[in-house]
Amino acid sequence: MATSNGPVLLDFWVSPFGQRVRIAMAEKGIEYEYKEEDLFNKSELLLNSNPVHKKVPVLIHDGKTICESLIIMEYVDEVWSGKVKLLPSDSYQRAQARFWADFSSKVYECGTRVWKLKGEKQEAAKKEMIEMLKLFEAELGNKTYFGGDTFGFVDTALIPFTSWFYTYETFGNFSIKEVTPKIGAWAKRCMERESVAKALYEPNKVYEFVCFLKKYYGIE
Amino acid sequence: MATSNGPVLLDFWVSPFGQRVRIAMAEKGIEYEYKEEDLFNKSELLLNSNPVHKKVPVLIHDGKTICESLIIMEYVDEVWSGKVKLLPSDSYQRAQARFWADFSSKVYECGTRVWKLKGEKQEAAKKEMIEMLKLFEAELGNKTYFGGDTFGFVDTALIPFTSWFYTYETFGNFSIKEVTPKIGAWAKRCMERESVAKALYEPNKVYEFVCFLKKYYGIE
Repeated sequence: MATSNGPVLLDFWVSPFGQRVRIAMAEKGIEYEYKEEDLFNKSELLLNSNPVHKKVPVLIHDGKTICESLIIMEYVDEVWSGKVKLLPSDSYQRAQARFWADFSSKVYECGTRVWKLKGEKQEAAKKEMIEMLKLFEAELGNKTYFGGDTFGFVDTALIPFTSWFYTYETFGNFSIKEVTPKIGAWAKRCMERESVAKALYEPNKVYEFVCFLKKYYGIE
Repeated sequence: MATSNGPVLLDFWVSPFGQRVRIAMAEKGIEYEYKEEDLFNKSELLLNSNPVHKKVPVLIHDGKTICESLIIMEYVDEVWSGKVKLLPSDSYQRAQARFWADFSSKVYECGTRVWKLKGEKQEAAKKEMIEMLKLFEAELGNKTYFGGDTFGFVDTALIPFTSWFYTYETFGNFSIKEVTPKIGAWAKRCMERESVAKALYEPNKVYEFVCFLKKYYGIE
């Protein structure tokens, strides 16, 4: 079998964590082989590449494996250091970018509670989601992107979750867009980028996937 | 009031996350002002410095605040770049160090379930703890430290949790040391370093603190 020495990405189409890496790779202009995983029947390659978490995304590069989306993003930013930089060069700004990128991962965990739970627990998750996104709204302020004028690390980390908002809104019966208009406008700006538009799926595709998941797990 | 321009650390004595930063600062030989927080009556300074998580540790440096222990450790490593480096220079090795440091934070969350819960849920947490530490044991292998011959990022991130093992063992009625002897030997090696010995407390002090917490939260 002919093997390529180029990077290989183990991923799953709707994974926002995988999408982060796809956006980072596209922003950097890196060619790679995309390998779709069946998350209900994970490949030996995935299980051996990420024995700790057994999760996508995994980047395989030069025979080495790198796991965890934000860690892969930093790796990509360091190894393919060119004109496009995801992280700023100033140490304080880097720390800030890492902080908000890390915090963005909590949107997904909170969103899962919104679509999985009912009653009081769901209400608590909805409240938490709004509070969280208001913090992002305040951090964004009137800037074009989180880092300023240039699309960067925090934008890459957060944007995939926005395609899940419709799902959260529908199952939670609440509005995210009304209370965080700046995040909505920022998301539109990001979606104008080819890197983002190619990685993300239509909100109704995400919704259909979550409907499938609910059925699969027997959640009413 | 006389003000110093040196770094200030908002911390809490037994916090393993704060201890990570104290070890990193000591390894680097950085002088700073330590401010003990009352976690049951948090200061305005803490609440204003870390409005998102409202947690220690927070590093205040040049009037700017940096939150989240691993992010502070990276900041410290970048800003006080001298002879002592916590992260390796190779990008793949850096990614690996970030991965294991990030994973080490899960020891604390799992340990909290060990001392807080009972019955099946506690058993599950105990099993998870052993599996997790066995993964660290395998990653350490026969190396002196996680990064090789030099004390570094992963050692700094993981070592504070070892002073909680006695608490987990006592409340969980199981043995961590027996199943992970290499981690035990590594912890002893780390404790020989002044940076670590000064930051950590005796296991029985941690145990007494957790007994207080259980009483405070009304946990049987």
